[in-house]
Amino acid sequence: MPTDAELADFYGGMERARLIPLWKVYKDHVPRAPSPRAVPHLWRFKEVLPLVRASGVLAPLTEGERRVLGFANPGLPYDGLAATTDTLWGALQYILPGEKARAHRHAAAAIRFILEGEGASTTVEGERCAVGPGDFVLTPPWAWHDHENTGSAPVIWMDGLDIIMVRELRGSFFEGAGEAPPAEPKPEGGSAARWAEGALRPAWERPRGKYSPLLLYKWEKTGRALRRLAASGQVCPYDDVAMDFTHPGTGGPVYPTMSCRIQLLRAGQRPRAHRHTGSAVYLCFRGRGHSVIEGRRFGWERGDAFCVPSWAWHEHAAGEGEAILFSINDLPVMEALGLYREEGLKEGNQKVK
Amino acid sequence: MPTDAELADFYGGMERARLIPLWKVYKDHVPRAPSPRAVPHLWRFKEVLPLVRASGVLAPLTEGERRVLGFANPGLPYDGLAATTDTLWGALQYILPGEKARAHRHAAAAIRFILEGEGASTTVEGERCAVGPGDFVLTPPWAWHDHENTGSAPVIWMDGLDIIMVRELRGSFFEGAGEAPPAEPKPEGGSAARWAEGALRPAWERPRGKYSPLLLYKWEKTGRALRRLAASGQVCPYDDVAMDFTHPGTGGPVYPTMSCRIQLLRAGQRPRAHRHTGSAVYLCFRGRGHSVIEGRRFGWERGDAFCVPSWAWHEHAAGEGEAILFSINDLPVMEALGLYREEGLKEGNQKVK
Amino acid sequence: MPTDAELADFYGGMERARLIPLWKVYKDHVPRAPSPRAVPHLWRFKEVLPLVRASGVLAPLTEGERRVLGFANPGLPYDGLAATTDTLWGALQYILPGEKARAHRHAAAAIRFILEGEGASTTVEGERCAVGPGDFVLTPPWAWHDHENTGSAPVIWMDGLDIIMVRELRGSFFEGAGEAPPAEPKPEGGSAARWAEGALRPAWERPRGKYSPLLLYKWEKTGRALRRLAASGQVCPYDDVAMDFTHPGTGGPVYPTMSCRIQLLRAGQRPRAHRHTGSAVYLCFRGRGHSVIEGRRFGWERGDAFCVPSWAWHEHAAGEGEAILFSINDLPVMEALGLYREEGLKEGNQKVK
Amino acid sequence: MPTDAELADFYGGMERARLIPLWKVYKDHVPRAPSPRAVPHLWRFKEVLPLVRASGVLAPLTEGERRVLGFANPGLPYDGLAATTDTLWGALQYILPGEKARAHRHAAAAIRFILEGEGASTTVEGERCAVGPGDFVLTPPWAWHDHENTGSAPVIWMDGLDIIMVRELRGSFFEGAGEAPPAEPKPEGGSAARWAEGALRPAWERPRGKYSPLLLYKWEKTGRALRRLAASGQVCPYDDVAMDFTHPGTGGPVYPTMSCRIQLLRAGQRPRAHRHTGSAVYLCFRGRGHSVIEGRRFGWERGDAFCVPSWAWHEHAAGEGEAILFSINDLPVMEALGLYREEGLKEGNQKVK
Repeated sequence: MPTDAELADFYGGMERARLIPLWKVYKDHVPRAPSPRAVPHLWRFKEVLPLVRASGVLAPLTEGERRVLGFANPGLPYDGLAATTDTLWGALQYILPGEKARAHRHAAAAIRFILEGEGASTTVEGERCAVGPGDFVLTPPWAWHDHENTGSAPVIWMDGLDIIMVRELRGSFFEGAGEAPPAEPKPEGGSAARWAEGALRPAWERPRGKYSPLLLYKWEKTGRALRRLAASGQVCPYDDVAMDFTHPGTGGPVYPTMSCRIQLLRAGQRPRAHRHTGSAVYLCFRGRGHSVIEGRRFGWERGDAFCVPSWAWHEHAAGEGEAILFSINDLPVMEALGLYREEGLKEGNQKVK
Repeated sequence: MPTDAELADFYGGMERARLIPLWKVYKDHVPRAPSPRAVPHLWRFKEVLPLVRASGVLAPLTEGERRVLGFANPGLPYDGLAATTDTLWGALQYILPGEKARAHRHAAAAIRFILEGEGASTTVEGERCAVGPGDFVLTPPWAWHDHENTGSAPVIWMDGLDIIMVRELRGSFFEGAGEAPPAEPKPEGGSAARWAEGALRPAWERPRGKYSPLLLYKWEKTGRALRRLAASGQVCPYDDVAMDFTHPGTGGPVYPTMSCRIQLLRAGQRPRAHRHTGSAVYLCFRGRGHSVIEGRRFGWERGDAFCVPSWAWHEHAAGEGEAILFSINDLPVMEALGLYREEGLKEGNQKVK
Repeated sequence: MPTDAELADFYGGMERARLIPLWKVYKDHVPRAPSPRAVPHLWRFKEVLPLVRASGVLAPLTEGERRVLGFANPGLPYDGLAATTDTLWGALQYILPGEKARAHRHAAAAIRFILEGEGASTTVEGERCAVGPGDFVLTPPWAWHDHENTGSAPVIWMDGLDIIMVRELRGSFFEGAGEAPPAEPKPEGGSAARWAEGALRPAWERPRGKYSPLLLYKWEKTGRALRRLAASGQVCPYDDVAMDFTHPGTGGPVYPTMSCRIQLLRAGQRPRAHRHTGSAVYLCFRGRGHSVIEGRRFGWERGDAFCVPSWAWHEHAAGEGEAILFSINDLPVMEALGLYREEGLKEGNQKVK
Repeated sequence: MPTDAELADFYGGMERARLIPLWKVYKDHVPRAPSPRAVPHLWRFKEVLPLVRASGVLAPLTEGERRVLGFANPGLPYDGLAATTDTLWGALQYILPGEKARAHRHAAAAIRFILEGEGASTTVEGERCAVGPGDFVLTPPWAWHDHENTGSAPVIWMDGLDIIMVRELRGSFFEGAGEAPPAEPKPEGGSAARWAEGALRPAWERPRGKYSPLLLYKWEKTGRALRRLAASGQVCPYDDVAMDFTHPGTGGPVYPTMSCRIQLLRAGQRPRAHRHTGSAVYLCFRGRGHSVIEGRRFGWERGDAFCVPSWAWHEHAAGEGEAILFSINDLPVMEALGLYREEGLKEGNQKVK
């Protein structure tokens, strides 16, 4: 039997040599199941909205690159390492009439889903995309993009970014205004004219790259797709009438790092609970309902945001009428890296703690 | 120098041994450029239509599987080896009110593009697809399918099949009515509800198979896509406002053997000539115009069909108004097998012989 | 009931309009099962060899591009349309000491498998590949290649090409000596140095193209792989110890149109019969044995060649000692186009007619 | 101008609402370039070896799952979050004669590269792999594996795992001995018999999955591949004679999360410096030399390990004789997620600070 002194000497030597005994830390390094630091959490719009409005007064667009209020998960730091889940960033962006958030670009991928307000636009590599409620717009990695509100009322949208994952994987790059020649203007609606109708492609284009060539997914079409699918009765047992936005050139997710989903929860339905690796950030776009996440019940209504950490049991249901949820998730990463795993309840659902 | 007798003895021995001297037949076996047997040809609807109508009287549906009048290329045999191009089959199918063409299935892939008539439907593996003019419908390989006309007027559509290629590659299979259990009925419009809106997918489906999961592409959407693309000014130098129907789960062609295209030729435009490996069969759906194929001018109008053999120079132009062409081609095969090659004129166009 | 005159008039009109009634030719166009024109056949080396040798005297290399004796299937024409199967070309090539077959290139893909003779080489795009018995060498589509014998004895190898399929799909191109600048010389063995060890790749190369970057597969390695696999007892129920040559950058076949196989049939084993779409041409490299193809028994020994048409039942067995067969097939085409289908006998084997 | 009190109230409210103002933390969230926490570091074998040996005495295998001494980067915590780079874990594992590290499995992927000692084996899903110096062995995700030393001397190998990334992406799972039925025994050398010769595959297997089907890459072959490549003069400007181990069924990396490289640095060569996203952990297997990483010079010799963080400039050179480095990296992740970026010096090299 080694003496305590021998052991102390040995472990001290290990530390000095920057060697760590795996047998002491095995459970931390190889958890038996995913161990997210992020916790289930909900951000109520009625608490958030006053702060959003105050930011319009107190945080001029000139102060930083964007006027964005990030959803800071209580399980994660409240500082430069804040995040909504362990890999994703969800936030609300607020732009007043007449304001313009200047162009920049980054290696991280971003999406916007418009919650309210007319008259805003995002210009991506020279192509202006005018957006209104329910519209979904992409600003792909390393694409120059700015945002502008030429309407008469403030605009609020949800930002979704993979910045947490990209930073932690040590792949982040950023350039601000003036650091490179701006993109040449392109005709508005160009990508939508080529790609938005779906199941058709311009005969001369075969985009197989990692990012969707379609920049703007209008609500008119998204909503119609949900209605048609709902009417057909073809639904997901866990997510009811759920559709993922796709890269029309590959059928895959819009980005390799992040997929985006719109789902209609029908009134009176109770989809089943399941859990899987990968995390998500949700925004309630319409209606009201609730989710049970790891046994905690979160009621939500329009404008509320919430998150589901990796491997957390979750189920969603509409309230009296139907409800529509938009969400972002990191499932493409889980699948590409072979880390996707799923379990579903066959019947019944979670017990609320 | 060998004597003639020696040579005769040698070549006679070769033939008896079923050995062929490549040095005698090299040019036939390895042509310097594609040598299609099919020739450019046009089938005028005004000559075809009387025969189509006569077939309704003289060729009862009970006689064969289908009442189909195939476009028999003059460069190819007029018999069991007839074909429209060296690899493709184009035809008109005619169904009278009250008729039903019984179910069968085959390893070959088929498409239908409706030229005229309301009230017809194709049922594919139990899913009924009601079709009208401009609609495009798939009956994928080995899927049971029948056709029915419950309307009040005859229906005419173009059939496009890869049967020539499939037979020559020795991959053909066929089963007729009663040879296997019929497909279970599925809700009408089910595939369209999942896939037709495009750039969205049901969250629970990831079809990466070889055949499009979308069976019916309605004209309403196809026409709208053409209009949007035309309005955006984004066009192909050779084919003007041209779009290919896609497999929404992969972004690729609807079949691995055959791709399908809809193109709007704008009035007053003169797209450039090009040639490429692979052949095509065209149907004029609307308007009038002309094509120059290997220096021969073919004027066409609604209902006319024509073909472009492999490696033939071709150009298309609308007449006074705009025109719309539908076509099938074997380009996916050329690309998958590494046989695609293309040449385009930089300016000017073909001289008409 | 239509009169005979009416019918004659109708069908005559159809023919004049180059329309063919599908209901009359349906069975020819959509066969119930693959209907190859090629028949099972065997070419005996002891009958072939005297003709090969005679060709060295009577057919100077200057007469055609190559001194190649093609295996002309008795079910196919004996002329410019001769072929070994419906899609493939197999042949023996013969080069005398001091001879050189000049450079050319074609869109068709070719392989060589050396039967006998030392001292030959094939130069592919400037890279010389010295070959001996059992070596397998690629001359990919549109790559300049010549052949030379600097040894002291004649060399005989099997040529395998997809020229039949490429011609029929109308994708053939050819250029002879002097039509383009020759390829620049590259170091001998360069592709093998990068790729031959397998399961390792040069860190700076990621070849995902359609053709294998490895040009020469030496017998030393091929034979060793067969031995190891045989010793491990892991075998195919139909083909015994069978391995396919692969494209090391993708793991797929060496060409998109043609795959190549080496198989060791162990003494005393009787692999089961199966049939599948796609055809093959075999060469016995070592030993002796027999195959039963569609119920006909073909005994073979070193140098003999035989073919298996599409969908033909076939089984192979070694004689008293072990035997080694090399073969080419068109299975990658069947698979890429969705035409592959297979049936295997669970027990027992074919009855010989 | 808002007063300080107004601002304090606003920012306090933000924090209470778990909203974080992006404009205050933008630079932390979206760094201008990758900002690894890991720093370049070298672990000297002569300092490490005594601790490795001491662990044989002081850390019985029964204490934890494995006797593994992890390389704990000085820029990262020294605790349960210790790691070698921001995404990777490198370590030395030590097994004494007669010892056996019991079976377990995890969602993380692991590799072993044997530094010294004969007589050890790793059994993966029932297939025993006997290993010696220079051998490279895979224990793929969720495969049961144990390690045993039946030789007469201790064995030391390098472990490489993606556990850091897998844990941070919240995809970790682990099961220990007895938690599930053990794998059925399979013949030793089975995967190598099917796959090790390379550029050949068993005719009946088409593994397109995410993990290499080859478990054991013997040094005999790896070393021969390096020699051949070196002799051919085909080298990488940055990494000299460098080869990546591949998944023989796809040509891609052995895992989707981690690629592995063996490189021979020739004497007298000075490869150029470059930097790229992604990190690596190196082990010197033979010889001696040095690396310059972000301007710091690290001399190394046999058994030394060092790391290169993401986006760090690095260059490697052998000393007087040649040297061989083994390394693991996360480049497949960078590439799959679209995060790969690279810069190389055209001439000259880094200045040592």
